Amino acid sequence: MKNIKLCVQFDGTDYHGWQIQKNARTVQETLENAVSSLTGTGVRITGCGRTDSGVHAVNFVCNFFSDTSVPPEKLPFALNHRLPGDIICKKAEYADENFHSKNSARAKTYVYKIFNDSFPDVFSQRYSWHIKDPLDTGAMSLAAKGFLGEHDFMGFASSGFSVKTTVRTVYSLNVDTDGKNITVSVTGNGFLYNMVRIIAGTLVFAGLGKINPADISDIINSKDRTRAGITAPPNGLFLKEVYY
Amino acid sequence: MKNIKLCVQFDGTDYHGWQIQKNARTVQETLENAVSSLTGTGVRITGCGRTDSGVHAVNFVCNFFSDTSVPPEKLPFALNHRLPGDIICKKAEYADENFHSKNSARAKTYVYKIFNDSFPDVFSQRYSWHIKDPLDTGAMSLAAKGFLGEHDFMGFASSGFSVKTTVRTVYSLNVDTDGKNITVSVTGNGFLYNMVRIIAGTLVFAGLGKINPADISDIINSKDRTRAGITAPPNGLFLKEVYY
Repeated sequence: MKNIKLCVQFDGTDYHGWQIQKNARTVQETLENAVSSLTGTGVRITGCGRTDSGVHAVNFVCNFFSDTSVPPEKLPFALNHRLPGDIICKKAEYADENFHSKNSARAKTYVYKIFNDSFPDVFSQRYSWHIKDPLDTGAMSLAAKGFLGEHDFMGFASSGFSVKTTVRTVYSLNVDTDGKNITVSVTGNGFLYNMVRIIAGTLVFAGLGKINPADISDIINSKDRTRAGITAPPNGLFLKEVYY
Repeated sequence: MKNIKLCVQFDGTDYHGWQIQKNARTVQETLENAVSSLTGTGVRITGCGRTDSGVHAVNFVCNFFSDTSVPPEKLPFALNHRLPGDIICKKAEYADENFHSKNSARAKTYVYKIFNDSFPDVFSQRYSWHIKDPLDTGAMSLAAKGFLGEHDFMGFASSGFSVKTTVRTVYSLNVDTDGKNITVSVTGNGFLYNMVRIIAGTLVFAGLGKINPADISDIINSKDRTRAGITAPPNGLFLKEVYY
């Protein structure tokens, strides 16, 4: 059996996230069906992480074991014929037998997109959070600095997930502006449940003047979910890159 | 009765074009329902032109007569509450009683978007034509020059439409490249049925080496539809601006 690593892009709008669930359309199940139909045998695919309902991925990494004779360089084309248009396999390659998409990941980059204008934009509504009041991106950038480094991010997680520790390290967190489009990019060694969306919501609160950028450290240290901003909606979130 | 002019943005993916048809979801009907629900009386809205099934609009202009007391500056907000997310009213204003969205239009700008990479991109598939073979954008720009000016564009129209004349003037036609994204922008005094999509298809054929850029004038003068390129798919097309 070969360990095959895939790089997949998907528009999460019409999916209930990555992970297989009963009575819900998921990316994992759709991809497993495509791989099974190609290889002729049932397969279980391991993803680099859960993504929530409506969240997108530019480079989602997953892997599965198979004795398929289809060479990796042909796999994307063969899979894309079997996949709906909102999931695309961009690359396939053999990985070390110990490679595990989730457990081997050392860091991830997420991008959160905001559209800041008095009216929404029909073409970016699937892929961004519309904020109608003007955002102070300087304040957002200042607030972003407070997240850098190793912290206990207990206050930046939604309940419903059990983890060994809530300590995570944020390597970089940037706020970039291009006209009405604001992009938040964050790289860290791992993220708690909804952590990126709560960080995005907190930066937006800083941009709206509802949170003082200088208070971010205090808010993190308080471990109090209610002091952070709201959980930003899923449609603005993209898993951009997984590092191994 | 006041003549009210609207500027509307829509994602055409899930509509059978602008114009009302039986048993099909159209932008006109959706918008008329929203306006009627707001004003309390049935209304017929005049659009600046037909757009085909799947074609988008950044600034679609339309107008209707009404004695509504809602002031124009409040209309967009009131309408957007009654419209689905893929149609947005951006502006409303009173127009001269003789203003007619279609007949008063002096020129229009359309944009056609192409995504040029070996794999498609899930996030631009609703809004661009995916061409997997490399396009020579220099050849496309050269070919574009051949369209400028007044010509009989009979060979650049799909059948099924009756018009008084097939002579149109193209004021500008540009090909801009930003990485894998190629944007064709065309401004003219009017366009025949499918004309912009056939121009886009012809430019792509020039970019693929299937048509010699120097032959464009001959192809136009031949008035032979079969010598032009294919009709590019609707999802890459955007009505950008209407000039009065």
